[in-house]
Amino acid sequence: MPDDRLLSINQVTTRERWTLEQAIDGYARHGVAGIGTWSDSVRALGLQAAARRIREAGLAVTGHLVGGLLTDRDPAVRRTRIDDNRRVIEEAAELGARCVVTIAGGLPAGDRDLAGARARALDGLAELLPVARAAGVTLGLEPLHPMITAARSVLPTLELANDWFEALAPGAAPGEAVPGLGIVVDVYAVWWDPNLAREIARASGRICAFHVSDWLADTTDLRLDRGMMGDGVIDIPGIRGMVEAAGWQGMREVEIFSARDWWQRDPDEVVRTVRERYRTAV
Amino acid sequence: MPDDRLLSINQVTTRERWTLEQAIDGYARHGVAGIGTWSDSVRALGLQAAARRIREAGLAVTGHLVGGLLTDRDPAVRRTRIDDNRRVIEEAAELGARCVVTIAGGLPAGDRDLAGARARALDGLAELLPVARAAGVTLGLEPLHPMITAARSVLPTLELANDWFEALAPGAAPGEAVPGLGIVVDVYAVWWDPNLAREIARASGRICAFHVSDWLADTTDLRLDRGMMGDGVIDIPGIRGMVEAAGWQGMREVEIFSARDWWQRDPDEVVRTVRERYRTAV
Repeated sequence: MPDDRLLSINQVTTRERWTLEQAIDGYARHGVAGIGTWSDSVRALGLQAAARRIREAGLAVTGHLVGGLLTDRDPAVRRTRIDDNRRVIEEAAELGARCVVTIAGGLPAGDRDLAGARARALDGLAELLPVARAAGVTLGLEPLHPMITAARSVLPTLELANDWFEALAPGAAPGEAVPGLGIVVDVYAVWWDPNLAREIARASGRICAFHVSDWLADTTDLRLDRGMMGDGVIDIPGIRGMVEAAGWQGMREVEIFSARDWWQRDPDEVVRTVRERYRTAV
Repeated sequence: MPDDRLLSINQVTTRERWTLEQAIDGYARHGVAGIGTWSDSVRALGLQAAARRIREAGLAVTGHLVGGLLTDRDPAVRRTRIDDNRRVIEEAAELGARCVVTIAGGLPAGDRDLAGARARALDGLAELLPVARAAGVTLGLEPLHPMITAARSVLPTLELANDWFEALAPGAAPGEAVPGLGIVVDVYAVWWDPNLAREIARASGRICAFHVSDWLADTTDLRLDRGMMGDGVIDIPGIRGMVEAAGWQGMREVEIFSARDWWQRDPDEVVRTVRERYRTAV
């Protein structure tokens, strides 16, 4: 049975009906040990207030979002994105977040040049890495599912995340941790990948966050129809075993975007269900 | 400009409003050179009648569907699937189809064992390959998009299709054609893949069909929301260049599943648009 002290919940899981303050209090009340936070909520509450409240509730911050989104061609937009990333990094430092969950960004409107978008994202990450290091923060490269390559992230596989990691940290030995840089494994994004076992092993020493939810057999939406662990087809314990064999000993963050189901329910029920399923299906 | 004599249309593109007979006549009337056929339509019309009508219309059959779907655990279901594949192969032989478009099948209901499903699919293909060879038919392994891994196909990448090809034809030299076995490249399924160029090159001599459609930036459905070429984000000419560099000189088959848009329109308008976009966006 997974250790309850390693359960974290990303606030997106309850964000339709709980503010960040309510989520902090609610997760703590239910004995959850960590939280994943989003910049817009933290800014709405105030960074200092959010950091204090999370600290007082005794929650770890297993990740802060959203970093990255660095694929725009327009230099002014790009500069705005870099500046926002600097702010997200500062927030992560203040919150004591284990990483900034960092996604590449999608294809700019009207653009078909995937290779170019990937090059710009990698270039932006190279610019941000020293900023993160100076702040004592880790940029966690998170591959997203290929179905949102155009809309959200041109980084669709763990293999490419490992490639980028190695491009950003040349000379790092296999299995060696690199300051300021990590990889986020989200089962929902990677479960289908025939190279999953190989690429998780390759990510040894690099993993900075582990996200769980489930893929529903009757999925109806490309972004907002994730399932509760146990309700879908992902072999979550199997993937957890892989990341643990790759050295991951940190928390398991539950992150469920579910417009048609879990977002409609009473958040207390959601958190109770997360706790139950964490024990039986993670 | 792509050669008009290489334009084929999969009948699914007009199937909501045209029967197979109407599609055969309509495509020929518009100067389209080929058709992709589906078993259910061919059976409804009668195999001999369908073959004769297609022949008389002067259309090539660039592919016949659906082969595969071989992931079930239940031996009886599996046997039914093998038998149906035998029938599909016979149909393809009678139609003179360039290949049977063959997909793996998804995860059986309640099943989370991807590796097992893949093993069963590969096993079924090994059983069918001699059948196809004896009939002078090519099984075209078609990877589908990772978003339908659970629902339709546990073969989500061209890399795995190449792996399976090599497992099924051990000892085949790189670039060498193998009787009865091929690979289908559908831009919609593979465009996002960071390994695309490498794996298309690896498929040299293996490609038996090339399918085109487009990925809409605002895609709303996991199966039935494909776009017309030019309306989305895929660099179709770029991928066509890759398959041609890998030796493909055959036809380009337009295959558009579009419940909300193209399936609602007058099929004559759809075919006219396909012809225009074939010239400007393929």
